[in-house]
Amino acid sequence: MMKAIMITKPGTPDVLQMTEIAAPTLQAKHVRVKVKATALNRADLLQRQGLYPPPAGESEILGLEMAGIVTEVAPDVTQFSLGQRVCALLPGGGYAQEVVVPEGMLARIPDALSFEEAASIPEAFLTAYSNLVWLGQLVPRSTVLIHAGASGVGTAAIQLVRELGSIPIVTAGSEKKREACMKLGAALAIDYKAGPFLDPVMKFTEQQGVQLIFDFIGAPYFEQNLQALAVDGRLIVIGAMGGSMQHSFDLGLLLRRRLQVIGTALRSRSKEQKEQLTSEFWEFAFTRFADGRLKPLVDHVFPLEQAAEAHRYMETNSNIGKIVLSVE
Amino acid sequence: MMKAIMITKPGTPDVLQMTEIAAPTLQAKHVRVKVKATALNRADLLQRQGLYPPPAGESEILGLEMAGIVTEVAPDVTQFSLGQRVCALLPGGGYAQEVVVPEGMLARIPDALSFEEAASIPEAFLTAYSNLVWLGQLVPRSTVLIHAGASGVGTAAIQLVRELGSIPIVTAGSEKKREACMKLGAALAIDYKAGPFLDPVMKFTEQQGVQLIFDFIGAPYFEQNLQALAVDGRLIVIGAMGGSMQHSFDLGLLLRRRLQVIGTALRSRSKEQKEQLTSEFWEFAFTRFADGRLKPLVDHVFPLEQAAEAHRYMETNSNIGKIVLSVE
Repeated sequence: MMKAIMITKPGTPDVLQMTEIAAPTLQAKHVRVKVKATALNRADLLQRQGLYPPPAGESEILGLEMAGIVTEVAPDVTQFSLGQRVCALLPGGGYAQEVVVPEGMLARIPDALSFEEAASIPEAFLTAYSNLVWLGQLVPRSTVLIHAGASGVGTAAIQLVRELGSIPIVTAGSEKKREACMKLGAALAIDYKAGPFLDPVMKFTEQQGVQLIFDFIGAPYFEQNLQALAVDGRLIVIGAMGGSMQHSFDLGLLLRRRLQVIGTALRSRSKEQKEQLTSEFWEFAFTRFADGRLKPLVDHVFPLEQAAEAHRYMETNSNIGKIVLSVE
Repeated sequence: MMKAIMITKPGTPDVLQMTEIAAPTLQAKHVRVKVKATALNRADLLQRQGLYPPPAGESEILGLEMAGIVTEVAPDVTQFSLGQRVCALLPGGGYAQEVVVPEGMLARIPDALSFEEAASIPEAFLTAYSNLVWLGQLVPRSTVLIHAGASGVGTAAIQLVRELGSIPIVTAGSEKKREACMKLGAALAIDYKAGPFLDPVMKFTEQQGVQLIFDFIGAPYFEQNLQALAVDGRLIVIGAMGGSMQHSFDLGLLLRRRLQVIGTALRSRSKEQKEQLTSEFWEFAFTRFADGRLKPLVDHVFPLEQAAEAHRYMETNSNIGKIVLSVE
């Protein structure tokens, strides 16, 4: 048996209740991990409201990432052993005391990182990395516009863009968030509440536009985003928090500037894609986390039993970096 | 001096007039070619009407491709010599007796091909190749939907998709065109006049959709195109002959299926990109043209002085493959 946060029925944060349930069963090529920390994602808020069901066959428990300690390995596991500190992307199940993870999804944690920091890495950094490197095919000395720069993905993207030899610029809605982004390496932090972000972007790029955009807002930003792209530029749509129905789209602009509009999601990718991404990312990032060039940004840590509190906090939109749940 | 087709003023095909003008000047790293054949492109019709001006600094003469014989090389040219049979993509200037071309843009022609056939290759095959390989990142055993299957680009794409180990399906507006596409290797030829193309596409792919679409139509096909894409599918927009303003675009669909919408054009690419594409394509294609696995499709050959006639013929939309002008 183990403790886990379950959803009594879809609804407000109060539906998140600590419950005693059966621990997951170990399978071939899998590793059992005692969870020390898990982190929140916007998808958790949707799933809690019944708007984002987990993939078929996966845990109903919330939680798309975790860090913890290996407590059991299947006989055919070759790369992990008891007592190791690890973290992983999960299809669900992180808000719990134990998880069982395919060994290909696991990564060792550098000693320099706490469990709370390590639990903040998988979703944010793997999303940012896959969109910069796989879909964005980022070339050094590019300029990348990152909306929601102070979010988990945003703070990861700022750092990765710098490490990849390019220039991150961001939008963010408060002075505090913009300061945090600049401290992480942003070359410009735009207050989107002060007017269209297009003007400062074009001024910064001397009217050339940017090579790559990370967007979470969707329709309300779509037209400005296209206008802000340079020739051969790519708009990566990671979310549509502001709405998804766009009512005017000039394909002529796409043709004239050879633009690309790319929809993406990490959660729906195949296990094979996620394992390849995990191994490629950690190859790139392990020593960078170890020596501090990359740093997961933890905004706030709540104990697991206060998951409802943590959800309410995320809904205020005031976090800078990740909101973490620590697990006893 | 040389003969060339000039535009007296923008307008109907009658504005195309044979004129005597100065031959182009040889420059460093350039090659002079006596043009034996050039081929028509839809862009020529637009340029003739004043709707598609040539890139700054390029020839005002129509003609985006040619095949001919090397008659002069600059002293620093290393890869070509007098008398060789060559073809090239041009920024303009093909409707003429002579062109001067950077050596990096030229390719040798296999002996098996006539000048008329060779002049039909550059625009159609380089467009198809760049969109399949560079932008489409085609994986073997994919299904590719090619609209306007009987067009120059369409007939090139059908053959290249087969050579790349994937399955081409097409739309075309006449029985004769559909037969020609099937003969070139299409696995299915859809009559778009008989109803929405989406239904036969989904039936053919057992409701999975296709991995890649080549579109020239734009807004009228946009929604069906997105619906016809499989997860991780790519829509490559090469033209917008039916209109470019799209009035509904669901970014949610893009996110759920991780779709990509990619605008592209060959003409506006940099000289460096075109030279790289030329060399990569001919590396792939030379022996395939030599042994007949690839074959440029010539619909009709007009003498250069009948350029107006050739334009009128293209405007009837009845060609299967390329319309060529032979040059004396």
